Amino acid sequence: MTTTTRVPQADRSRAMRLRLLEATVEVLVERGFSGTTTTVVSERAGVSRGAQLHHFPTRNDLVVAAVEHLTVLRGAELAEALSGLPRGKGRSRAVLRVLGDHFSSPVFTAALELWVAARTDEQLLAAVGPLEQRVGRETHRLTVEALGADEQQPGVRELVQATLDLVRGLGLADTITDDGRRRGRILDRWADVLDQQIHHQTTTETA
Amino acid sequence: MTTTTRVPQADRSRAMRLRLLEATVEVLVERGFSGTTTTVVSERAGVSRGAQLHHFPTRNDLVVAAVEHLTVLRGAELAEALSGLPRGKGRSRAVLRVLGDHFSSPVFTAALELWVAARTDEQLLAAVGPLEQRVGRETHRLTVEALGADEQQPGVRELVQATLDLVRGLGLADTITDDGRRRGRILDRWADVLDQQIHHQTTTETA
Repeated sequence: MTTTTRVPQADRSRAMRLRLLEATVEVLVERGFSGTTTTVVSERAGVSRGAQLHHFPTRNDLVVAAVEHLTVLRGAELAEALSGLPRGKGRSRAVLRVLGDHFSSPVFTAALELWVAARTDEQLLAAVGPLEQRVGRETHRLTVEALGADEQQPGVRELVQATLDLVRGLGLADTITDDGRRRGRILDRWADVLDQQIHHQTTTETA
Repeated sequence: MTTTTRVPQADRSRAMRLRLLEATVEVLVERGFSGTTTTVVSERAGVSRGAQLHHFPTRNDLVVAAVEHLTVLRGAELAEALSGLPRGKGRSRAVLRVLGDHFSSPVFTAALELWVAARTDEQLLAAVGPLEQRVGRETHRLTVEALGADEQQPGVRELVQATLDLVRGLGLADTITDDGRRRGRILDRWADVLDQQIHHQTTTETA
């Protein structure tokens, strides 16, 4: 009967790990990095301290694993949101709205807390740096695909990069001021620029 | 003789206040918000705990005053850097390089630490929010002027806002990866877009 009992145990262990990771992200968003202690996370997840220490010996282990977990979710969510968009006119605007929302979501906030903490914490930086590079490449790839951008054309790659830096900047602004409408207008304007520059569509002259 | 002795005392008090503010900014950049304690700042500034408490009763008082001080410096520095730029061809690129450097400087890093801390600290947010609005308006005004942008034209205002969100996003990226060259290429490309969109200059077609 050992096999039948061992399977649920492994499941329970996986479920517990997942609860800890999800609780970590929640607490990062609610209390910031300095408020994200293993005690608070264990309580939130309903997991004993012993079990928490078994899965994640240090706070950094927990936090880095949580953001790694989140990163995978982020990529999947973004890919799904982008895949559902209709083709044709207005597509660039729709793509930028999805990117704007993505970079203003709790997931971005949790990542922001980590980036800022990693700036003054070498050990954390060593873990967060490579993770962010991976996310960056994946987000860039998804954006190129969604916009139908041809990066072989000179200047197109830089515009895609600029687009991602723009939504990152908008996401940062959003953390202290609720500026959804402002963001929408800026993104629409940027989308029109991309249509002209990348797709060579002419829009109404502005002067 | 009271007047002659009172003047230097007032000067000393002002100098002490300034030293505390400058030390706070330095410590914010080096150790982050959670590492910016009044003890560390007093030591760095060479000011007694008593004198520090006299000027700034709480850590938030100190931190908010330091960023207010910094904000004034930021505006003055940016205005000066922009005023020194030559007119004519290549001006937009030069303006964007100045903005890019400005949003990747220690002053931006100190502000970033505050924004992120304010997100989960209501009292700090109440002080940082209005301050950031003021800086935002001033930076926008300087940018409009430097670019020679006519905001009466439809879509121009949104492009200026997008430019500032772009440099904010680049500044955020810069805190964890040293990407000066990447930033330069992106900003040059965006400057060319602005020349087309705002100044109706035609550049070499990219396709």
